[in-house]
Amino acid sequence: SEVKKIAVIAGDGIGPEVVGEALKVLKKTEELFGYQFETEHGLFGGIAIDEKGTPLPQETLDICKSADAVLLGAVGGPKWDNNPKELRPETGLLGIRKALGLFSNIRPATVFDCLKEASTLKPEVLEGTDLIVVRELTGGIYFGEKFRREGANGQEAVDTCVYNVQEVERIVRQAFEIAMTRSKRLASVDKANVLETSRLWREVVNRIAPEYPEVELEHVLVDNCAMQLLRRPSSFDVIVTENMFGDILSDEAAMLTGSIGMLSSASLGEGSFGLYEPVHGSAPDIAGQGISNPIATILSVALMFRLTFGYAEAADSIEKAVKEVLDAGHRTSDIAVDKSKAVSTTQMGDLIIAAM
Amino acid sequence: SEVKKIAVIAGDGIGPEVVGEALKVLKKTEELFGYQFETEHGLFGGIAIDEKGTPLPQETLDICKSADAVLLGAVGGPKWDNNPKELRPETGLLGIRKALGLFSNIRPATVFDCLKEASTLKPEVLEGTDLIVVRELTGGIYFGEKFRREGANGQEAVDTCVYNVQEVERIVRQAFEIAMTRSKRLASVDKANVLETSRLWREVVNRIAPEYPEVELEHVLVDNCAMQLLRRPSSFDVIVTENMFGDILSDEAAMLTGSIGMLSSASLGEGSFGLYEPVHGSAPDIAGQGISNPIATILSVALMFRLTFGYAEAADSIEKAVKEVLDAGHRTSDIAVDKSKAVSTTQMGDLIIAAM
Ligand SMILES: CC(C)[C@H](C(=O)O)[C@@H](O)C(=O)O
Ligand SMILES: CC(C)[C@H](C(=O)O)[C@@H](O)C(=O)O
Repeated sequence: SEVKKIAVIAGDGIGPEVVGEALKVLKKTEELFGYQFETEHGLFGGIAIDEKGTPLPQETLDICKSADAVLLGAVGGPKWDNNPKELRPETGLLGIRKALGLFSNIRPATVFDCLKEASTLKPEVLEGTDLIVVRELTGGIYFGEKFRREGANGQEAVDTCVYNVQEVERIVRQAFEIAMTRSKRLASVDKANVLETSRLWREVVNRIAPEYPEVELEHVLVDNCAMQLLRRPSSFDVIVTENMFGDILSDEAAMLTGSIGMLSSASLGEGSFGLYEPVHGSAPDIAGQGISNPIATILSVALMFRLTFGYAEAADSIEKAVKEVLDAGHRTSDIAVDKSKAVSTTQMGDLIIAAM
Repeated sequence: SEVKKIAVIAGDGIGPEVVGEALKVLKKTEELFGYQFETEHGLFGGIAIDEKGTPLPQETLDICKSADAVLLGAVGGPKWDNNPKELRPETGLLGIRKALGLFSNIRPATVFDCLKEASTLKPEVLEGTDLIVVRELTGGIYFGEKFRREGANGQEAVDTCVYNVQEVERIVRQAFEIAMTRSKRLASVDKANVLETSRLWREVVNRIAPEYPEVELEHVLVDNCAMQLLRRPSSFDVIVTENMFGDILSDEAAMLTGSIGMLSSASLGEGSFGLYEPVHGSAPDIAGQGISNPIATILSVALMFRLTFGYAEAADSIEKAVKEVLDAGHRTSDIAVDKSKAVSTTQMGDLIIAAM
């Protein structure tokens, strides 16, 4: 079969460890299914600041652009937290999203049965929760003009939130499409009682809705959504929202599953190109100890197979293997009840490969 | 003692019912403690739209301005939801905040023991949760310029988020003062890794912090805060944040207590003037049935006594009475396990008065 190019960005903290295990899984799928992958590594985030003087070197961007998909570990750490803006890992993250046109961030908030107890929500409330947050990723207040100026009452800071019709249309259409493959329920979240961008957002949603008559649509105000996620998480299927609201709500949704260390995400642009990464961060406190949990990154590979390559069979095999290993009681220390019995990062990777 | 003037705005839905009970409590404190109150009623919200053609008539504003404090029921309902912006209850709400200079919204998220079970969080997670969200209320993206324009990719909408140093200073200072009266822990929430207004916010917080050396300060990013509220609610004491983030986080915090129908709030300006209202909405679905829960509004009176009038003794007496009535097992239907035994709105008011 065709050789697929994957740009691999290990990043900082536990990034290299968890990506290492994901690459082992990738290799295993080559053996099992006859796929061919070519990987090329790029520096990104803190390590790129240290070695290249910028969080997103042009070389890394070129590697990504020439690839079919990007696998990202995690970036950031206290070492770079007080750097000036241009020298911060987050700036690289915003830069890569914009440069690669990744306008859509897809975050499944799935409850892993074996981790249900880890949630702070009551199990009966969590029961049946399986939702996806579709977050607009290259617009809104993240990318609008920002500046300082002198005002009548001293210095003031300004951020601008801008959305155009086309930006809203493409993300909303994608959310409807995703809803069609699932339970056909879509919640569009905005603050239309206050924001002009939200009123535009809602107009576009209402204009597109008739194209998807089977999808049951509700408009939810962002403050109400923050409540309803807590009150009735299982009633949501697909949630679509703008960049800043999506940042907040996707983290809230992820946390309520109790499975945050296991969740993967995809950032998609036009066509099939995508960047895949675990939801968790770079966890600098445990980096280098070989105890981090590689499952979210391994599941990100499965998501890549599904969404970018259309390798559903291999994606199934990875997801099934993860489930089997967990069902057999194997845990890395972050999710282990009895930490003394926890397996290491590489052991977890090996177990999953063996189960594939 | 001096006569205190209270502007009373019953509003829409269950607003008039719950305010009615709060006024009975007010009267009772006159008898018990010798205070003197003069109340003046104003139209506001949906009813003002219907009767005066505007959600915030000048007359109502004048009544508020000449008062020492405002007691508000609730506003809004489906009847006005599709009105043009100038004819919507929310527009009145934003207008009254701005016109009265109510820059600070104080929202205690308290767990009522008898309602602990109503929370979707596990009781052991909720244990000890007692926090206050201090939300900036007259700045940020709520009040910045908003408009539509033609862009290169069709129509676009713009919202502007602006904060000046003085606006941040006054709310942050107030939050530090509140923290000093409590457990002396303050979490300042921003998105300083992305927003210029957040970077200004954080600078101001760090500049003021040395004036309160006893207060333990943490900076929390808004997405992380949405998670931490779920993971470790009891670790928060005072949370201070800007308008939009405060809207979302205060609702999340309120919901996790399980006591949302019981929570009161204060909106304060310079000096002792304040507007007091329950956190819950106008609940049009149960309006007029006499079954609404007046406790949040009654507790708003206690908050008014404490924060505007300095009537701590009377505030204590109201709060104690509410606790006693609940401990004795009385419930309105919204919080009753056995709805057939629920008391009515007026019965609940009477029980509380009797217990004072
Ligand atoms: C690091 C930060 C800039 C980023 C964001 O806000 O988008 C992160 O929170 C995320 O959600 O990926
Ligand atoms: C009705 C709406 C404009 C208002 C707000 O967003 O401030 C409400 O949600 C609140 O929190 O008081």
